Amino acid sequence: MLDAPVQPVRPVQEAPTLRLKRALLGPALPTARLIHERLGVLLGLAVLASDNISSSAYGTEQVMLPLLAAGLAGTALTFPIAVGIAALLAILILSYRQTIAAYPSAGGAYVVTKDNFGLNLAQVAGAALLIDYVLTVSVSVAAGIAAVVTGVPALTPYIVPLSVACIALITWGNLRGVRESGKMFGVPTYVYVASFGAVVLIGLARLATGHLAAVHPTQTGPLPRQTATIGLLLLMHAYASGCTALTGVEAISNGIPAFRRPEAVNARKALVMMGSILGILFLGFFEFFQFSTLLILVLAANTSFADFPRLASFAAGDAFMPRQFTRRGHRLVFSNGIFTLAAAATVLLVAFRANLNSLIPLYAIGVFISFTMSQAGMTRRHLRLREPGWRYGIVVNGLGAVVTFVVLLDVISTKFTHGAWMVLVALPVLVLLLYRTNRAYSGELAALKVELSETFAPPKPRHEVLVLVEALDRPSLLALQYANQLRPLRMSALHVAVDPDAARRLATLWAQTRVPLPLEIVDCPDRNLVACVRREIAERYRPDTELTVLVPRRGYASVWHRLLLHDRTSVGLIRTLGDMDNVNVTIVPFRVRSERQRAVPAG
Amino acid sequence: MLDAPVQPVRPVQEAPTLRLKRALLGPALPTARLIHERLGVLLGLAVLASDNISSSAYGTEQVMLPLLAAGLAGTALTFPIAVGIAALLAILILSYRQTIAAYPSAGGAYVVTKDNFGLNLAQVAGAALLIDYVLTVSVSVAAGIAAVVTGVPALTPYIVPLSVACIALITWGNLRGVRESGKMFGVPTYVYVASFGAVVLIGLARLATGHLAAVHPTQTGPLPRQTATIGLLLLMHAYASGCTALTGVEAISNGIPAFRRPEAVNARKALVMMGSILGILFLGFFEFFQFSTLLILVLAANTSFADFPRLASFAAGDAFMPRQFTRRGHRLVFSNGIFTLAAAATVLLVAFRANLNSLIPLYAIGVFISFTMSQAGMTRRHLRLREPGWRYGIVVNGLGAVVTFVVLLDVISTKFTHGAWMVLVALPVLVLLLYRTNRAYSGELAALKVELSETFAPPKPRHEVLVLVEALDRPSLLALQYANQLRPLRMSALHVAVDPDAARRLATLWAQTRVPLPLEIVDCPDRNLVACVRREIAERYRPDTELTVLVPRRGYASVWHRLLLHDRTSVGLIRTLGDMDNVNVTIVPFRVRSERQRAVPAG
Repeated sequence: MLDAPVQPVRPVQEAPTLRLKRALLGPALPTARLIHERLGVLLGLAVLASDNISSSAYGTEQVMLPLLAAGLAGTALTFPIAVGIAALLAILILSYRQTIAAYPSAGGAYVVTKDNFGLNLAQVAGAALLIDYVLTVSVSVAAGIAAVVTGVPALTPYIVPLSVACIALITWGNLRGVRESGKMFGVPTYVYVASFGAVVLIGLARLATGHLAAVHPTQTGPLPRQTATIGLLLLMHAYASGCTALTGVEAISNGIPAFRRPEAVNARKALVMMGSILGILFLGFFEFFQFSTLLILVLAANTSFADFPRLASFAAGDAFMPRQFTRRGHRLVFSNGIFTLAAAATVLLVAFRANLNSLIPLYAIGVFISFTMSQAGMTRRHLRLREPGWRYGIVVNGLGAVVTFVVLLDVISTKFTHGAWMVLVALPVLVLLLYRTNRAYSGELAALKVELSETFAPPKPRHEVLVLVEALDRPSLLALQYANQLRPLRMSALHVAVDPDAARRLATLWAQTRVPLPLEIVDCPDRNLVACVRREIAERYRPDTELTVLVPRRGYASVWHRLLLHDRTSVGLIRTLGDMDNVNVTIVPFRVRSERQRAVPAG
Repeated sequence: MLDAPVQPVRPVQEAPTLRLKRALLGPALPTARLIHERLGVLLGLAVLASDNISSSAYGTEQVMLPLLAAGLAGTALTFPIAVGIAALLAILILSYRQTIAAYPSAGGAYVVTKDNFGLNLAQVAGAALLIDYVLTVSVSVAAGIAAVVTGVPALTPYIVPLSVACIALITWGNLRGVRESGKMFGVPTYVYVASFGAVVLIGLARLATGHLAAVHPTQTGPLPRQTATIGLLLLMHAYASGCTALTGVEAISNGIPAFRRPEAVNARKALVMMGSILGILFLGFFEFFQFSTLLILVLAANTSFADFPRLASFAAGDAFMPRQFTRRGHRLVFSNGIFTLAAAATVLLVAFRANLNSLIPLYAIGVFISFTMSQAGMTRRHLRLREPGWRYGIVVNGLGAVVTFVVLLDVISTKFTHGAWMVLVALPVLVLLLYRTNRAYSGELAALKVELSETFAPPKPRHEVLVLVEALDRPSLLALQYANQLRPLRMSALHVAVDPDAARRLATLWAQTRVPLPLEIVDCPDRNLVACVRREIAERYRPDTELTVLVPRRGYASVWHRLLLHDRTSVGLIRTLGDMDNVNVTIVPFRVRSERQRAVPAG
């Protein structure tokens, strides 16, 4: 019976996208390597602490701006405010040590809130953090590029494209894998810390010998317009601005799964190291090297690239975000989260034209909401479980919750009119989106679920196959041959006449060629092929008949054909028919100029 | 046997794109209405003559610019040059009356050259015209917007967006149909002609009574830098510039199929009317109303929108351009040609920032190439056929060919360095693309062709069905049930394990549910589902076996699902598997929350 010529197996053609992926990102990491992609303390510090530590590069300036607006005398208050911020940092570090101990597998605000206040409130913490991660990327990149532009003013017109290029670079680094991005971004972190430390030591030495020069603060934008007297309000403003420096504390708790075993121990070590470094840097402020500032600021964004995708994967795992965020990509990182973060940060940077002074007021609200919720959650947990040391825990976390809540109110009240209102609008919108997504998934799960008692229904009594014929050519003949293979009860060849003249010519040729199946021709007066085919199929549908529609597809080997000449009709047909209920659509491929030409001459 | 619940026929859902189309363009015109969409002389003049007539709005200025550069004294030469151009216009009109008589169904340069010099040379004429149509749109729109901006200088920064909006408007008008665009654009043409005529009459009256004020020419850009003495070169330059006014003559000959019967008679009437109007307008130059200038210039682009798509449909019918250009759209116009022209003109306008002075030198080369080829073709035809009056024909068309060729050389030599070189680079590239397209189509036709003696090959001896299982849910069960319907020799259920944990859970559930077919699980260590499925299928391929792969597709009713949550996996699978040779891919649809849930509880 084997009349058809035997065809060789074609090697699997690798998709061009896969080749591109491999060239850009390196070979695919097998799933089993996941455990080896974990980070030690030092690499973990580099990946997860650069956000926090880098805040020292603009935190002080943010404190001084409101003070400068009130006359230079106010700058005397900079140091006390910095001490206040360092104290808050200490409280946070102590609190988060508790959190990591209590949630050794992942201890971000999302997980803590979920465990102590339930899934719905956890979405609020999650949304707040997601927004802040996006802002971290935007603010850090904008600040880094601002530093570059201060050095090379000729680059000023290119601030936005440079920022976007920066984000692209960090995205690329992160898509290459967790360890790779750690290595890429670890060196700058330590260079920064070392150079900053050296500057502080030199400064202290000069202070001791009386050679310290006066400080001329540089700033990245015009001074705020309002001139306030040095009062409580001003101090609140200065303090709130300085608190932007603390936004990175959450990063390590969220990032626990990225650490080597024992995860919690390594994470706590990294946390304390980070706190100490930032505290020292913040108190030893000013006069650091422009170059390492640029490096660390741009790379600070990297921390968000580690945490945003992980947080999104948590929320997606709980069915509050699209499922795609749980997938690990080519290099075992959550690529979809990385792309989403990069896109959101890019939009923000372009919308605000990479202007640091308009971005900073948006910042810090999200993270202080999550601080508060996370600390409140820990307090609740201590009260609930009463594990050893719970009294100390309540003091630390309770104090943390109260302090961060007060700071949150401070931040909101002083920055509201400067743009913070946008965050307070975006946050509930994002939370509603998360809830809506969850509701949609719940409904879907119910509709798809198979009961254990269920089993196969028998096939329908009739099977009808309809072959869509565009022309009498080899692909159509091949589809007819395949229709034979299915041995349906009824088989039809259908031509939808978009061009009446062409249809007449086809009918004549069909009769001449003596195809052993009559050709049915239906009119399509509005020349919308896809709509006509849909209408025709809907008319043929019977509840007791399984309907299969065969669409011959002409596959072209040459790029020229694919790009320019490839008739999108079959693609469009497949897409829209595939959207119809009750119809099974089969693509019968025919490769033009391939060996697959099974219609043999009659013997 | 009918265990499955009887389902009601779902009404055909109309695609949202179709609803949008209807809202924007009106109801679909049936193919049978094509003949009623033809134009009478007046409407045809409006559609096809606005390009030509509108040239009077900038033609004179183009003549004067080189003369002004040589000192204002040169402007005295403007009138003689205008007379020269009017004479050339007369020659062209006479020549094209011959052409329309000889080719009463369509008499553009493409058709005439094809008939007299063959298909390959016709592509040169066609490519030259296509380029010129694009330039006509760009130049007309840029000139129209420049006129608006002269009136309302506040709009100056928005020249480019305004131009793009203009093109969008004209595109919309043309997609609505030939008659609709005629009505939309006919009124401005006649308003323009009337107001221009009135101005000329008033001017003549004032001249007679000695009240004519001095002319202060406005111009759309800076004067050309070079200051030449008034010599032959300068005159050539001025003449060449003025010849841009003649670019619309071709339009009516190309547009013959758009006229009512008798097409040739109506077209010739319109041609003579157009020539007379332009001649009068050109000689009565200057001092016309800014407002009607704007209207006519912007709408002049409309003529190209009538001719470019038709010419593209000719070339596509001859298999030198993609076949899609032969399709008539929703309102019986060649929508693909309209979109292509709009896109090309938009790119050009944006690239040249809608600057008229950089666009104009690109213009006119294409049309004079096609004039020359068309006239030469007519001359050859007269020599070949020797029909009655062929001697007069040779004189008229031979003179036309010589004169247009001389003008072509003049245009090229004086404008070459001002940008015309770009056209001379683009033209051969486009011609090569047309040839390449033709070669690809020829090869394809050979590969697809069915010989009259051919007939069906018998089906392959074996048929194997593979069901791709993502989860044990209703869509998968439905696909298994459909696989049963096909009664293959072998049937398998395959799960590609992207997530090893999920695969283990699926295997357990599969066993518990007692699905009457074992589940095969294959590893996918690089988590690239599509690539893994391809590899697996390639391994299973046997030459003597017809392989059908079933992909369950989850169709969601809510927009939320489609946009945000819809897992693109099945879509990606269908696309890439559909690209493989030797595999038939069937989409088995399951509408979530629909009645189609045929898996019934075991009785």
